[in-house]
Amino acid sequence: MQPESHAQDHPQAPLNPGIVFEMLQAHQRTAALKAAIDLDVFRSVGEGPGDVASIAKHCKASERGIRILCDFLVINGVLAKENGRYLHTPSSAAFLDPASPACMASVAQFLSESAVMQADGQLAEIVRAGRTCMPGQGTVEPENPIWVQFAEKMAPMMGPMAAPLGEVVLEGRTGPMRVLDIAAGHGLFGIEIAKQNPEARVTGLDWAPVLRVALDNARKAGVHDRYDMLPGSAFEVDFGGPYDAVLLTNFLHHFDYATNVQLLRKVRAALKPGGRAATLEFVPNEDRVSPPQPAAFAMTMLTTTAQGDAYTLSELTAMHKDAGYSATKAHPIPMSPHTVVMGYA
Amino acid sequence: MQPESHAQDHPQAPLNPGIVFEMLQAHQRTAALKAAIDLDVFRSVGEGPGDVASIAKHCKASERGIRILCDFLVINGVLAKENGRYLHTPSSAAFLDPASPACMASVAQFLSESAVMQADGQLAEIVRAGRTCMPGQGTVEPENPIWVQFAEKMAPMMGPMAAPLGEVVLEGRTGPMRVLDIAAGHGLFGIEIAKQNPEARVTGLDWAPVLRVALDNARKAGVHDRYDMLPGSAFEVDFGGPYDAVLLTNFLHHFDYATNVQLLRKVRAALKPGGRAATLEFVPNEDRVSPPQPAAFAMTMLTTTAQGDAYTLSELTAMHKDAGYSATKAHPIPMSPHTVVMGYA
Repeated sequence: MQPESHAQDHPQAPLNPGIVFEMLQAHQRTAALKAAIDLDVFRSVGEGPGDVASIAKHCKASERGIRILCDFLVINGVLAKENGRYLHTPSSAAFLDPASPACMASVAQFLSESAVMQADGQLAEIVRAGRTCMPGQGTVEPENPIWVQFAEKMAPMMGPMAAPLGEVVLEGRTGPMRVLDIAAGHGLFGIEIAKQNPEARVTGLDWAPVLRVALDNARKAGVHDRYDMLPGSAFEVDFGGPYDAVLLTNFLHHFDYATNVQLLRKVRAALKPGGRAATLEFVPNEDRVSPPQPAAFAMTMLTTTAQGDAYTLSELTAMHKDAGYSATKAHPIPMSPHTVVMGYA
Repeated sequence: MQPESHAQDHPQAPLNPGIVFEMLQAHQRTAALKAAIDLDVFRSVGEGPGDVASIAKHCKASERGIRILCDFLVINGVLAKENGRYLHTPSSAAFLDPASPACMASVAQFLSESAVMQADGQLAEIVRAGRTCMPGQGTVEPENPIWVQFAEKMAPMMGPMAAPLGEVVLEGRTGPMRVLDIAAGHGLFGIEIAKQNPEARVTGLDWAPVLRVALDNARKAGVHDRYDMLPGSAFEVDFGGPYDAVLLTNFLHHFDYATNVQLLRKVRAALKPGGRAATLEFVPNEDRVSPPQPAAFAMTMLTTTAQGDAYTLSELTAMHKDAGYSATKAHPIPMSPHTVVMGYA
């Protein structure tokens, strides 16, 4: 969610039920974006000329349907319209046109098929129970195939965060080093370290089918000769090591406080003296309701996990302290809802 | 949708995939509001004290679930949070607390069970076909039971529009007059005329099961002795008359241009000399993408009808002209997405 995209409710403003109606209709926005991606609307707009007839022809769709859909996308800021023709906004050109290397269409596919969306009709029951209505630990059940999908589809969303994360983790260090990437997924974070430091050797840890995606990405990045695979559960396998750095990206939010302390302690034991753990997380402010996007992520953890959360910095700091780290430091990643929290062994 | 609630995409702003991610997650906002209404969260917040434990107790729900849900509602502007306690915003107090006479909770129930939401997963197919995937004419199939639901549940949404519409239609006229309310639904618009003019006699036209809801409302308003019922289809029954005014509220958007011209002509034939037709519509600007809420309504017409639309003022003016009206005049209703378009016989 964008900070600026939420109607504020000032006591002095006249009352308007629009905010309620808008929220009740918000589901249409997700459906419209998904349909536009499925129909290849954004590629057609990019190729031009952007009139209803030519987009409809490209998408093998009706003109009425395309006109109403494209207008809806304009209303929602992911297309522009000039003189009756549709054109890209800078964001739709970068993130929605398949011709763009930063295209996030696969993210839409992942999110729209995910348990998050399927939980919509069960949310009251989930709130009653206080946990996902999926069995066991929800998405973090061992070998859940969702993580292969995640690794394959969500890379465009996570890719832009890799470079800034790599810089924070390396802090300018060069020379030989060993890095463990826990819950590597697409592997992009560990791979980025290997790219930024040609003497770094990276071990990706994840379920074996997921690691195949990471290895593919390592191969594409030309760093596969420095990429090792450690298949299994972060809670069960021997980490080996010792490591100069351990990455824990988008992982702690799935678990409760005690489980995270236990894991951070295991990580610390695998670090060299002076080593560091780097967690990448959605970190809301202490009020838990700002900034909007990291704070709202708690809802996804409610619907898909048994005990996960969007942890505040004070909670993450306390976890590190309880796990024996000497210091922590937060680095918000610009233009993203993520923060890197460094824990020093 | 609120005009201020849409992230604008300025060419000079740095690119941020947040707008795409936010739209992909927008469905959570609808699910969260629906769950909060179902769990009676807003009544509990209104009664206080608003801490997680007492709301959870009231709602028979878990504290984890309530905390994450309420935080999400705060992020989305339909609750406030101070010192860890949840309280109403002016809007949530007015429109979401069942203790408020303006509570719109039943609107949520109607919208969340409606064909609009069920169409989410079929939107690409709907855009391809250019029409609802419901059989026949969609929601405007004869005797569709959805309209009894609409009449019962949507009244809180439409009620606030009745007084300004009544004033526009009456234009200060007093004395005996006859008014036909086509597709009366909840009946509130015709009833309002009867309230504002104690000598007005109103005929409500709708399917018979719907008219029972309107008559109930006429009884509650104490005007049932001046409320007549004309059951059937607006396209088939004899209107009788002649009338001083005919109301066509939230009706034309379901049909195509030619059908509307035909209906407006039939209406005109039932008007006294000097009589007027009053249509209540979502009227977007000629660009069809502003203001957001009336423009976005076209999407609902795509998903639920075969040929409906959110018509622009130039289209509505042309329909009236083609149907033989001498003049039209638009009256936007303040603080609402609706416009009254008056057609003079």
